[in-house]
Amino acid sequence: MLKVGIIGATGYAGEELIKILLGHPRVTISYLAAEIEKPQPINRIFGHLSGRMEVVCKPLDIAEAKAKAEFFFLALPHRVSLEVAPQLLQDDMPVVDLSADYRFKDRGVYEEWYGVTHTDPGNLQKAVYGLPEWYRSRIRKSKFVANPGCYPTACLLGLLPLVKKGLIKPDSVIIDAKSGLTGAGRKASVDFFFSEINENAKAYKVDCHQHAPEIDQILSYIGKTSYQVVFVPHLLPLNRGILVTMYVQLKKASSIDVLYKLYRDSYCWEPFLRVFKDHAPQLKDVVGTNFCDIGVVKSKKHGLFILVAAIDNLIKGASGQAVQNMNIMCGFKESEGLL
Amino acid sequence: MLKVGIIGATGYAGEELIKILLGHPRVTISYLAAEIEKPQPINRIFGHLSGRMEVVCKPLDIAEAKAKAEFFFLALPHRVSLEVAPQLLQDDMPVVDLSADYRFKDRGVYEEWYGVTHTDPGNLQKAVYGLPEWYRSRIRKSKFVANPGCYPTACLLGLLPLVKKGLIKPDSVIIDAKSGLTGAGRKASVDFFFSEINENAKAYKVDCHQHAPEIDQILSYIGKTSYQVVFVPHLLPLNRGILVTMYVQLKKASSIDVLYKLYRDSYCWEPFLRVFKDHAPQLKDVVGTNFCDIGVVKSKKHGLFILVAAIDNLIKGASGQAVQNMNIMCGFKESEGLL
Amino acid sequence: MLKVGIIGATGYAGEELIKILLGHPRVTISYLAAEIEKPQPINRIFGHLSGRMEVVCKPLDIAEAKAKAEFFFLALPHRVSLEVAPQLLQDDMPVVDLSADYRFKDRGVYEEWYGVTHTDPGNLQKAVYGLPEWYRSRIRKSKFVANPGCYPTACLLGLLPLVKKGLIKPDSVIIDAKSGLTGAGRKASVDFFFSEINENAKAYKVDCHQHAPEIDQILSYIGKTSYQVVFVPHLLPLNRGILVTMYVQLKKASSIDVLYKLYRDSYCWEPFLRVFKDHAPQLKDVVGTNFCDIGVVKSKKHGLFILVAAIDNLIKGASGQAVQNMNIMCGFKESEGLL
Amino acid sequence: MLKVGIIGATGYAGEELIKILLGHPRVTISYLAAEIEKPQPINRIFGHLSGRMEVVCKPLDIAEAKAKAEFFFLALPHRVSLEVAPQLLQDDMPVVDLSADYRFKDRGVYEEWYGVTHTDPGNLQKAVYGLPEWYRSRIRKSKFVANPGCYPTACLLGLLPLVKKGLIKPDSVIIDAKSGLTGAGRKASVDFFFSEINENAKAYKVDCHQHAPEIDQILSYIGKTSYQVVFVPHLLPLNRGILVTMYVQLKKASSIDVLYKLYRDSYCWEPFLRVFKDHAPQLKDVVGTNFCDIGVVKSKKHGLFILVAAIDNLIKGASGQAVQNMNIMCGFKESEGLL
Repeated sequence: MLKVGIIGATGYAGEELIKILLGHPRVTISYLAAEIEKPQPINRIFGHLSGRMEVVCKPLDIAEAKAKAEFFFLALPHRVSLEVAPQLLQDDMPVVDLSADYRFKDRGVYEEWYGVTHTDPGNLQKAVYGLPEWYRSRIRKSKFVANPGCYPTACLLGLLPLVKKGLIKPDSVIIDAKSGLTGAGRKASVDFFFSEINENAKAYKVDCHQHAPEIDQILSYIGKTSYQVVFVPHLLPLNRGILVTMYVQLKKASSIDVLYKLYRDSYCWEPFLRVFKDHAPQLKDVVGTNFCDIGVVKSKKHGLFILVAAIDNLIKGASGQAVQNMNIMCGFKESEGLL
Repeated sequence: MLKVGIIGATGYAGEELIKILLGHPRVTISYLAAEIEKPQPINRIFGHLSGRMEVVCKPLDIAEAKAKAEFFFLALPHRVSLEVAPQLLQDDMPVVDLSADYRFKDRGVYEEWYGVTHTDPGNLQKAVYGLPEWYRSRIRKSKFVANPGCYPTACLLGLLPLVKKGLIKPDSVIIDAKSGLTGAGRKASVDFFFSEINENAKAYKVDCHQHAPEIDQILSYIGKTSYQVVFVPHLLPLNRGILVTMYVQLKKASSIDVLYKLYRDSYCWEPFLRVFKDHAPQLKDVVGTNFCDIGVVKSKKHGLFILVAAIDNLIKGASGQAVQNMNIMCGFKESEGLL
Repeated sequence: MLKVGIIGATGYAGEELIKILLGHPRVTISYLAAEIEKPQPINRIFGHLSGRMEVVCKPLDIAEAKAKAEFFFLALPHRVSLEVAPQLLQDDMPVVDLSADYRFKDRGVYEEWYGVTHTDPGNLQKAVYGLPEWYRSRIRKSKFVANPGCYPTACLLGLLPLVKKGLIKPDSVIIDAKSGLTGAGRKASVDFFFSEINENAKAYKVDCHQHAPEIDQILSYIGKTSYQVVFVPHLLPLNRGILVTMYVQLKKASSIDVLYKLYRDSYCWEPFLRVFKDHAPQLKDVVGTNFCDIGVVKSKKHGLFILVAAIDNLIKGASGQAVQNMNIMCGFKESEGLL
Repeated sequence: MLKVGIIGATGYAGEELIKILLGHPRVTISYLAAEIEKPQPINRIFGHLSGRMEVVCKPLDIAEAKAKAEFFFLALPHRVSLEVAPQLLQDDMPVVDLSADYRFKDRGVYEEWYGVTHTDPGNLQKAVYGLPEWYRSRIRKSKFVANPGCYPTACLLGLLPLVKKGLIKPDSVIIDAKSGLTGAGRKASVDFFFSEINENAKAYKVDCHQHAPEIDQILSYIGKTSYQVVFVPHLLPLNRGILVTMYVQLKKASSIDVLYKLYRDSYCWEPFLRVFKDHAPQLKDVVGTNFCDIGVVKSKKHGLFILVAAIDNLIKGASGQAVQNMNIMCGFKESEGLL
């Protein structure tokens, strides 16, 4: 059994990691840390773990962490991973980092969007972007994976088959994204008070969300040309799920059959991708799973194609994908503990 | 006091008409009809009316209707208004029809999208499209108003200032629309069972919703050129509200200040329109009101502008707008009973 | 027009007062205060007021308050009213206080449950408990009304007809209460984060909620014997509404007809009470209104009667009732602005 | 691998059985039947099964069922099991029936509450009530288990430790129950339309729900005296979960410590029961699990104890418990596939 540590165990991503790893036949959770005042059994913090696990969650102590676990998930706020990751990596500990700190090859982009100086450029260059469907062989050889953002996961899985083939006009991509509340993290803010969100919906960070440059980076890298997507996220009154509706123009006219075949061919061996022709997926078919469902629809107008992708933001959009990455890094079956 | 009849009183739009008209100082509800088996006090059907009104709701009897009321709202399913409206109009009764039956000047478009032959072309030509902000003077002189659809109301109010001035590329309009459930009507369908909708979200009728040609018709008429919008509606787990996020390209580059001024100038005298610069409206500020809130945002990319409009689908998107039309037709203050 | 001031304008009760008073034909809102850093137009704080009112909300200045308004609502947190009310009352300003600070005739009970010393015992004795259906004549003569708590309003209206007649066994009252989230106030707490409440339900403060002694006080006063109710509140994932299910044993066997008649007789002239026989009310019939719906049901077992009462916690349970009290104090029609 | 058939695969309980059994290491789903017009792959009916299982769901054919599977779950509407179960039992097929048809030893009670004649009294006497915590040894030896109702599961697990010891006054039990919507089944009714339930809550079948006699039967059997509980169910706007708040009077005064010890002793070896002292459980800690959480609280008043129990109605209240029963019947580890 692989001994696993979770640093940042009390946020939504940390909680979901615990849930998933409890059912994983190849690992045991041996270390939990979080920013808390004093050590506390994790089942006191999360009542649903009562009677299921006894591990005590403590303030982070790197030496103890290294002594107790041999594989680490960092489910920390952005900026905090920058301090923790190097201390684990210097001892060659394998790490999946769920923050944005190591996702950008161009540290300037990171620094501009996250408002902080990147203090660990060495490891930044080593980090592999943890989108298994497109970076699997590199993940397999890596000891340090930067887990993608929740919106980028859905958007990239939906766009990359077209982008890889160079079929899209690079300046035509419009993404209208919708997310449930756990995507915002577990925050004590009046803005996220139940009654402010329930029976409400709104756009936020219109065309200025930090996930847009993350999407641009990967599209541009895989597509070998510069992409700048228009990205408008919306907040929906539900707990889990991301639904992205993407509008793209092709360079040359094509048919739905040709495009659908491209998606099927791209993803037919993938354990967690499902593709639908002329049919938009719905959140409830992916919530609670590590699946990404993608619908491909041809508009009757203006040569436009519409791609709709749906994921559970906490699973495929965060902790499930992190475990998928661990499975690949450790040579386990990729879907182990995730189906 | 104007004696008002509501035909189709037991759907969501009929119920909302009753609520609004109960608080209207110039009218009294004197006749209620619906497709029910036998007459029943309306306060038995809607418990919230208990102790508030005594009118009995009956199966429709046109002669009785004409005897009891002098102004009519038809809150009927599409196709049914075609049978009822002519019988009222032949006696010169003023009518606001909330169905789609009289919204299309080109009956062929109606017949294609609603799958039915239009049997009343004469009145179709007389009907005025009931969007007060753009058809006020005609509504004032009319006895027959076709109340706009819920999505078209939000979309048209958001797009028409630009379209009127001919500033938009006609083939660039992409509308990503989101609606709560009352927009679907009160239906006994497993698809709308609470647990199928709650914690779910999905796109539906992707690029093939019957409100798209209604939007196209009005944009093309006011814009004096052919528009074909891409329209993708989504269902959200909430009771009321429509939020539309619209992506448009201008023919010539412009600034946010110029565009915002255009919107302010277009709507500054309107009692129910509110315009915001670089700020997207949220549903909860319009739900329960007859307001339409519009946010104008300039994208940093590709010369795109983003317009976000929010309404309460049952009020500004249906019954509130119908009362606003009645106020105009009857020479009442336009906001009477609506503020 | 009566010039009205609201002190504590930015909480849920303050917001609801503004909404109600905006539609009230006899008053104008002339002063708004709240604990904010600097003066701000109220329509910036509440977007739904945009274009509807221009009053600036300021940090409280008692002299300015007295100069600008002639009637006051205090929608303040408990304990804060103790500081503000005396300053208004010393100048004979009429005040409706929505906090708990002046609800308890026995200051010891208040001090025990709210953990604070009562510093204004003089005004405490003058305050009239603002439950119009049972204290109307005293409210009419009063200048200082302590508005009841939300749970007590629903429970007392449901129990008092029986208690007044001395029909209940005093130690038999069990109240299982359910409330939406606005009842908790607008709080920045992780406990009230959307995703912690949505798809959840729980009992809280089991048999130790501060509204129990408030209910006991009034039952004991009107019933002329000591009552101690068992009170278990629950939190439901919805915005508005209180539903209380109350189980009581009668001293002597009775029939549903006799009991229903008692309730009808007690409340037949009341503008905001509706009574149902053998039928439990539902929240959606009262939400958005000042009504209290009460269902009277006879259990087939153990001589038990079941009373179910439903209110909108922000209207009949707070701001609507406060305006009802103002109407009585000022000699307006009692339902003015509330129907 | 045990070959399992599910008859009634398209309701909520059938869907949940499929989800659970897909993750069960000892079984394979080999037969699916439902009332559908023509055979259809189950992954077309439930999109979330797409890519996960290929079994075709068909109209029931008993011969085919027996040929394809060796263990059966009946997730059928009440009354329908009466026709199906005997045909499987006559060939000694092991069956867990999730309907109410075989739960009542006294067929007269069944016939009164379900309005139907019991046509299979022979098997009725053989059926074992499938509440593992109290009927485990009999379930182990049985080939036919009647799975308990959702409300009875929560209520009985909460009450039986006290009832077994004869500590409760039999006429003192009041149960205030709350359930999410999946408890109502997947129904095409306007009453369960999303907008009728969302932002609403209500009591229904007040003191006349068919689960009350089921609770009475088991309490009376285990308690060896006649119990008649007062049972008032409520509908809450959420998908899953049952929360029951139960008020009981003891024959003799006792302390919270003594009672809590009784519960701990009763359940300490149970894999799915968790007991809390002076603390009420919440739905979100049990939703998605087979756990039943029970809180024991002593009221300060009238010698009352308050028991709060929480389950997921589709798991511990239906399909999870059914699988737990299968595990016991087949000699598998009791928690196999359920943790």
